[in-house]
Amino acid sequence: MNTFRILLAYDGTAYHGWQIQKEEATIQGIIESILAKVTGEYTRVVASSRTDAGVHAFGQVASFRTNASLSTALFKQALNAMLPHDIRVIKIKKVAALFNPRRDARKKRYCYYIENQNERSAFLHKYCWNVRMSLNLADMRRAARMLMGTHDFTSFMGAGSGVKSPVREIISLQVKSIRELQFMDVRFSGNYIRIHIEADGFLRHMVRNIIGTLVEIGRARMTPEAMREILASHDRRNSGPTAPACGLFLEKVTY
Amino acid sequence: MNTFRILLAYDGTAYHGWQIQKEEATIQGIIESILAKVTGEYTRVVASSRTDAGVHAFGQVASFRTNASLSTALFKQALNAMLPHDIRVIKIKKVAALFNPRRDARKKRYCYYIENQNERSAFLHKYCWNVRMSLNLADMRRAARMLMGTHDFTSFMGAGSGVKSPVREIISLQVKSIRELQFMDVRFSGNYIRIHIEADGFLRHMVRNIIGTLVEIGRARMTPEAMREILASHDRRNSGPTAPACGLFLEKVTY
Repeated sequence: MNTFRILLAYDGTAYHGWQIQKEEATIQGIIESILAKVTGEYTRVVASSRTDAGVHAFGQVASFRTNASLSTALFKQALNAMLPHDIRVIKIKKVAALFNPRRDARKKRYCYYIENQNERSAFLHKYCWNVRMSLNLADMRRAARMLMGTHDFTSFMGAGSGVKSPVREIISLQVKSIRELQFMDVRFSGNYIRIHIEADGFLRHMVRNIIGTLVEIGRARMTPEAMREILASHDRRNSGPTAPACGLFLEKVTY
Repeated sequence: MNTFRILLAYDGTAYHGWQIQKEEATIQGIIESILAKVTGEYTRVVASSRTDAGVHAFGQVASFRTNASLSTALFKQALNAMLPHDIRVIKIKKVAALFNPRRDARKKRYCYYIENQNERSAFLHKYCWNVRMSLNLADMRRAARMLMGTHDFTSFMGAGSGVKSPVREIISLQVKSIRELQFMDVRFSGNYIRIHIEADGFLRHMVRNIIGTLVEIGRARMTPEAMREILASHDRRNSGPTAPACGLFLEKVTY
């Protein structure tokens, strides 16, 4: 029995998230059904994060165990030949049997894109949250700093999560203004915002609830100082709405 | 009666090309149906180029005439509010009644992207032709130079075109190797090729047939010198296959 670790990129637009479902196309479901064809056996695939419907990945990490004795190069080739083009295996390697991409992850980094203008791009709109109201980045950054460090993030946790502890450590949270995005080798000037967030782990919907709250603050519907109170309240009703999935990318998982 | 000129960008993936069709979604069909709602009258929209199914545009130019007395700002806002997100009006301005975007175009520029590697990008595959065989760019450039200038391009004309003259002038034809494409603000290194082609006009399928022939030459299935013979033969059967539509972008029309 060999254990393989795979690095995946996917455009989540067409999928109902990572986790396998009976009726809907999911990333896990597709990879497992292809692995069954390649290896001739049922193979469970575990991911570092169960990304929500519509969320994308530049660097999701997953693993599976199999009796099949294909080389890593052949595994990668077979998977990419059979996977839809919007799900790609970037790397594959053999790892220790005990490797668990979820439990062993030390930190995870997400990025989120906001198109902060009236105009939308014909090519990039699918990967941004379009917010027309002008956002105050200084206020968003001030609020972001209050989330840094180790806290109980219950106020930003979506319902239905079964975690033991709501305590996480945010290592980095950056709000950056971008005046130019590229598509292929063409530059589109505009008013974009990229938010990077890195933590030792995330609760369900935590990134999207933090983004939604930062946007409320950027729009001046809440003060930056409210962030501290929201965090201390341990009550999801006090934070902002969940930001749309389409702007979110799982960027990197560190082990 | 006012005449308006509009600059359009669109992701052609979901559409059956520019030209209106009874059963299928086309760019022209969608814009005309929205203009009918906005102006309350039937309004024909004419484009500089009737792009094929699946072809994209960074800068298509079109025009329409209307009795409606909306300002250009309101027209743009109304159109973009009602158009699907993958079709965008970038600019709109009032022009002379005689303006005809097709007849008055002095030159048109297209670009074409080839992903010249085994690996495909989860995010950019929809906008490239994936060619796995290694391509000799020096040979492609030598062949490209033979197409420069004024020629009868019958050998590269698709069937069913009703043009009077097959003579066109190619002003620029560049084959460039690109080692890095960007998506959002993330760089993807790889082996890409971008072909720029500018002419005073193009015959039906002319760009895609030229690209298809250049790729045959890049793969060494034809010599660069064959390009001269193909051009002189005035026979479509001698040139290469039509390159896929997905890699093609109408970049700029000059008046």
